[in-house]
Amino acid sequence: MKIGCAGLGRMGQRHANNFLNKTPRAELVAAFSPDPRELAWAKENLAPYGVTLYMDYDEMLSHEGLEAVVLATVTAVHAEQAIKAIAADKHVLSEKPLSTSDEISQKVVDAATKKPHLKVMCGFSRRFDASYQDVKAKIEAGLIGKPIIFHGQTGDKRDPSGFFVQYAQFSGGIFVDCTIHDIDLALWFFGEENIVKSIYAAGVTAIEPGLRQHNDCDNAVGIVEFYSGQIAYFYVTRMMAAGQEDQTFIVGTEGKLTVNQDPAINLVQIHDQSGVRRHIPQNYFERFSDAFTLEANQFTLAVLDDLPTPLNPQGAVHAVKIAKALQESMNTGKKVMYDENEQRIK
Amino acid sequence: MKIGCAGLGRMGQRHANNFLNKTPRAELVAAFSPDPRELAWAKENLAPYGVTLYMDYDEMLSHEGLEAVVLATVTAVHAEQAIKAIAADKHVLSEKPLSTSDEISQKVVDAATKKPHLKVMCGFSRRFDASYQDVKAKIEAGLIGKPIIFHGQTGDKRDPSGFFVQYAQFSGGIFVDCTIHDIDLALWFFGEENIVKSIYAAGVTAIEPGLRQHNDCDNAVGIVEFYSGQIAYFYVTRMMAAGQEDQTFIVGTEGKLTVNQDPAINLVQIHDQSGVRRHIPQNYFERFSDAFTLEANQFTLAVLDDLPTPLNPQGAVHAVKIAKALQESMNTGKKVMYDENEQRIK
Amino acid sequence: MKIGCAGLGRMGQRHANNFLNKTPRAELVAAFSPDPRELAWAKENLAPYGVTLYMDYDEMLSHEGLEAVVLATVTAVHAEQAIKAIAADKHVLSEKPLSTSDEISQKVVDAATKKPHLKVMCGFSRRFDASYQDVKAKIEAGLIGKPIIFHGQTGDKRDPSGFFVQYAQFSGGIFVDCTIHDIDLALWFFGEENIVKSIYAAGVTAIEPGLRQHNDCDNAVGIVEFYSGQIAYFYVTRMMAAGQEDQTFIVGTEGKLTVNQDPAINLVQIHDQSGVRRHIPQNYFERFSDAFTLEANQFTLAVLDDLPTPLNPQGAVHAVKIAKALQESMNTGKKVMYDENEQRIK
Amino acid sequence: MKIGCAGLGRMGQRHANNFLNKTPRAELVAAFSPDPRELAWAKENLAPYGVTLYMDYDEMLSHEGLEAVVLATVTAVHAEQAIKAIAADKHVLSEKPLSTSDEISQKVVDAATKKPHLKVMCGFSRRFDASYQDVKAKIEAGLIGKPIIFHGQTGDKRDPSGFFVQYAQFSGGIFVDCTIHDIDLALWFFGEENIVKSIYAAGVTAIEPGLRQHNDCDNAVGIVEFYSGQIAYFYVTRMMAAGQEDQTFIVGTEGKLTVNQDPAINLVQIHDQSGVRRHIPQNYFERFSDAFTLEANQFTLAVLDDLPTPLNPQGAVHAVKIAKALQESMNTGKKVMYDENEQRIK
Repeated sequence: MKIGCAGLGRMGQRHANNFLNKTPRAELVAAFSPDPRELAWAKENLAPYGVTLYMDYDEMLSHEGLEAVVLATVTAVHAEQAIKAIAADKHVLSEKPLSTSDEISQKVVDAATKKPHLKVMCGFSRRFDASYQDVKAKIEAGLIGKPIIFHGQTGDKRDPSGFFVQYAQFSGGIFVDCTIHDIDLALWFFGEENIVKSIYAAGVTAIEPGLRQHNDCDNAVGIVEFYSGQIAYFYVTRMMAAGQEDQTFIVGTEGKLTVNQDPAINLVQIHDQSGVRRHIPQNYFERFSDAFTLEANQFTLAVLDDLPTPLNPQGAVHAVKIAKALQESMNTGKKVMYDENEQRIK
Repeated sequence: MKIGCAGLGRMGQRHANNFLNKTPRAELVAAFSPDPRELAWAKENLAPYGVTLYMDYDEMLSHEGLEAVVLATVTAVHAEQAIKAIAADKHVLSEKPLSTSDEISQKVVDAATKKPHLKVMCGFSRRFDASYQDVKAKIEAGLIGKPIIFHGQTGDKRDPSGFFVQYAQFSGGIFVDCTIHDIDLALWFFGEENIVKSIYAAGVTAIEPGLRQHNDCDNAVGIVEFYSGQIAYFYVTRMMAAGQEDQTFIVGTEGKLTVNQDPAINLVQIHDQSGVRRHIPQNYFERFSDAFTLEANQFTLAVLDDLPTPLNPQGAVHAVKIAKALQESMNTGKKVMYDENEQRIK
Repeated sequence: MKIGCAGLGRMGQRHANNFLNKTPRAELVAAFSPDPRELAWAKENLAPYGVTLYMDYDEMLSHEGLEAVVLATVTAVHAEQAIKAIAADKHVLSEKPLSTSDEISQKVVDAATKKPHLKVMCGFSRRFDASYQDVKAKIEAGLIGKPIIFHGQTGDKRDPSGFFVQYAQFSGGIFVDCTIHDIDLALWFFGEENIVKSIYAAGVTAIEPGLRQHNDCDNAVGIVEFYSGQIAYFYVTRMMAAGQEDQTFIVGTEGKLTVNQDPAINLVQIHDQSGVRRHIPQNYFERFSDAFTLEANQFTLAVLDDLPTPLNPQGAVHAVKIAKALQESMNTGKKVMYDENEQRIK
Repeated sequence: MKIGCAGLGRMGQRHANNFLNKTPRAELVAAFSPDPRELAWAKENLAPYGVTLYMDYDEMLSHEGLEAVVLATVTAVHAEQAIKAIAADKHVLSEKPLSTSDEISQKVVDAATKKPHLKVMCGFSRRFDASYQDVKAKIEAGLIGKPIIFHGQTGDKRDPSGFFVQYAQFSGGIFVDCTIHDIDLALWFFGEENIVKSIYAAGVTAIEPGLRQHNDCDNAVGIVEFYSGQIAYFYVTRMMAAGQEDQTFIVGTEGKLTVNQDPAINLVQIHDQSGVRRHIPQNYFERFSDAFTLEANQFTLAVLDDLPTPLNPQGAVHAVKIAKALQESMNTGKKVMYDENEQRIK
């Protein structure tokens, strides 16, 4: 599968590298970035392996033989680029979210729906993590009975550089940027057909007051009720001292499953005067690097063998919608309610 | 210190035993229960060690030389018995909560306030647990900076006997019965002077639909915002499969502390065909038995050496008030809001 | 049971305190120490509670009504004091070891054997630890099949004061002082009737070269083979950086049990810039304080209700014999071998 | 780098797959097996990707353009195949051990020494495991001071099929087959120049008495003393109930490092009626699969960029020599001693 990578920032470089080196059935043939520094990186790291570089996205789409694109550009252009790619008859793997707007996200899904021969997938990387896949399998095997309560925490390491404030201009807010992963997992474990009944959230700015100018917080909690009698609740923070702490538990009628209650970067423990300790991943990619590799391989497999994509893009729209309502509730202090068709109740 | 124990059910027997055997400076001289089976137990287990048994609480209060009482009766009579004891000039250690009503709880505190020479304490046992005391000391030492987020989980082991439904008639509900411990901890760690801004909760009945007739749930989550820019959020459940799972974490601006993320009954691990596993405490008392012993000793110390009690009874009233508002929000679906004097906003 | 405590150093104070405050059926009536500083401590901490103090051990033995003694004096006098107590018809709880000589230890057992109405017990405290008791119960229940391999580690926290060198003059050496606990556990779990086939050890002095003048080491390993087809192997060190690290595992034909693979002082974990860490006990008593309390209570129970003592004193002699052979092998470099009657083969 | 894979059994298939799919700078061009079933597998899994299959090792060596071979055949032919490959001017990555004889192993090293332009490496996969690499880095950074004690455990899952007895005919015995990894690690962490002073071992057959006919055991322990004042001790077993349990600790003068004290297959924990548990890897490859991939990549890097190989083949000979002496001591019951030039003392 000949694929091109759009966007060569931190995340794009990883996708490019995965398709170049770790996805045996795919071939990275093209890469695009509008950013000269990113292109300089690509000249050194991609061009020598036969990857053609583009400063223009549309030109990359015309690369001869190109069959698919992976979108790792800024969120604001995901939807437009996805729609163009679909129009050009390319399979699409987009970084999450499709858009910070659920209406715009829906347009991507609508475009994809019209071309059912194309594989269009929004990459919720955690679904490709071995531990979350194990949890999914155990739930489906009935190990914990019916899942009732989901708790998801996304904890980014504190970054004193002010990055998070800058980033909040575009990110859609902490629930849309981070909790969206937890929302996707909750939908996956509870059943994607579930109808939301209500959404409520609260947040604070403990270390980055500048976030308030972008209607954002650095610590927030939220509760989502479903008509099915299930509840997902979330904690999201930019204030972890030790590293990336993404933790999950699911309580069912017969048991409980946890993921990453004891974060650790590897199997080493240090016994010294500070006690007994272990280091933990410092960022999202350290925690989930294997998941990104698997995602690239499974997307490729779906394209080449015409299998269903592991994720349904409609689910990605749903997750954005929930995330935005959490963000809204956090800012207004008001509960958001839905009827049994998940139409908002005024 | 000569003490009498009122109530000789599961909890009362433990208090009686602690004051009889594990509190060197106290002497259990009297015990009261209206229940013949409990008295039969006492005849065998307490009377031989010189404890006088009473079927009437008022008579026990008149026991010669009695200086203090520990109340382990049903919640409904805690307040009345506490007020009588205070009137009779006895020190009081009451099981939590003082009452499921904060107004009635307040009456106990008012009675105590008029007799400042008496020690009146509502026993939130977790405060006497070594791990929570360690957390408190570390927070006060500044180890995690300013605490911002508190998460408390009280998880009772699933009891298929129907006990929880019966119990719900009197317990005040799951937040008042269980989460009250977590609320007390949140107030302790955040600072007891903090003013609540809002309260919101949601719950389900996953295994015990009978709870709804008592306006109760078997799984619930809640969020409490404080004017100080701190948030406490809670999960409470009667559905734990492995045993008692009471877990807490506190996130501060500089670090995070957790209690019991890896529950275990002791230091043993079993490696067999099921994997690597450990057993966990099966109930509240197995988890906190040492804390009850320390509580008895510290109450005795406060009485004998005229020291401040480790817990302020006004805090217990505050905890009941918050727990009741969580219970109310869970049942109405509405957020409960307060002004900066913690007066409720209609 | 009226008991007197001989020796009021670090360990004696703990025994005295346990019998004074935490052993409901025993009464500490007397205490002996030849050391003025220890007696000064006792005047302040024991005398006010009715404990008579003695500077002479024989005088304490004559204390009116005295029924039992606990020996927490220096190892060199344990045997003599035990034999005197037995002669005076007192029950005896002795700190381990009875002696650093197995011949002298045997004399205590012989004296006890002649007075079967007396309870004579050598206190291997770990046997009273909840985790080790759990392991014993699980082995007896067949959980791991036949136990085959025992690994015991005793790890003392590094003490840069030079204490361990001084102490080595009297301790009998690191295997006799420390590993004796592990040997006792191995015998308990494997079956006390087992016959030793061979003993081998090796050691180094990594931080305290002064130990060599006392034929001792600061780190040593040893292997004991039994004729039953079981092997116990040991690691012992005075060089732990984080605290006391006493760890054990037992591998059986059907499973494995571990004790304290994850040392921790309580249930708290700290997440900060150093990673995720926990503190661990700093010394033997912090790790095993509950075990000492249970030991005092079970000894009292054995005396008052005329039950068998939980430990057979002949086993204590066996443990000393094995420990001494390990120490010898470490110093000579030679394997020590026994025939099937456990008679040494030259 | 064009590479051929010799041997397509369990291990060979993994090496073939790693060079085919996970080593971007290498190309698997040829594969050899004398076994029709293995070749059938290769026809299906390798041939479609352009890999030429051979039933004759010498013919594979003549494959046009071949630059390197990976040897995953039975141990008995490693040395001969390695020497032939060196003679044919191919780089060699051999599975461990080079031979169960240290003399024969030495011949490979001698052959390699004469062709310094070739990279010849014996693959001790654990060295490429992220946790062991972290330990090595921490030791070199001085985190634990001078390492003094190494404990290595290799624990294979119990296999009731009788496989281990059959395998013992060729494996060289449990120390040569399994502990060799731990020996290699000990040498790596202590310093490969260290001189062995003595070797002692003891073993039992708890579940597979048939092993004795091959002078082997199913559980064994051993101690290796070095003239440097360091001690390595080992436990090796074929009797783990839960899965593969390879555990290591290293104690230094200033701290301790552990690897895999809490085995786990992923980050999931299950809370159910059996307690709280986790699954663990079921075999060596599940535990170390990432290490094999890194090994393939680092070998390729060494060849293509003419860098030193991460492992010195002389070290592999040293490890075999120590393993064989442990095996010998286990069977004779006698300590094996060496002088300061590591010449054996009779």
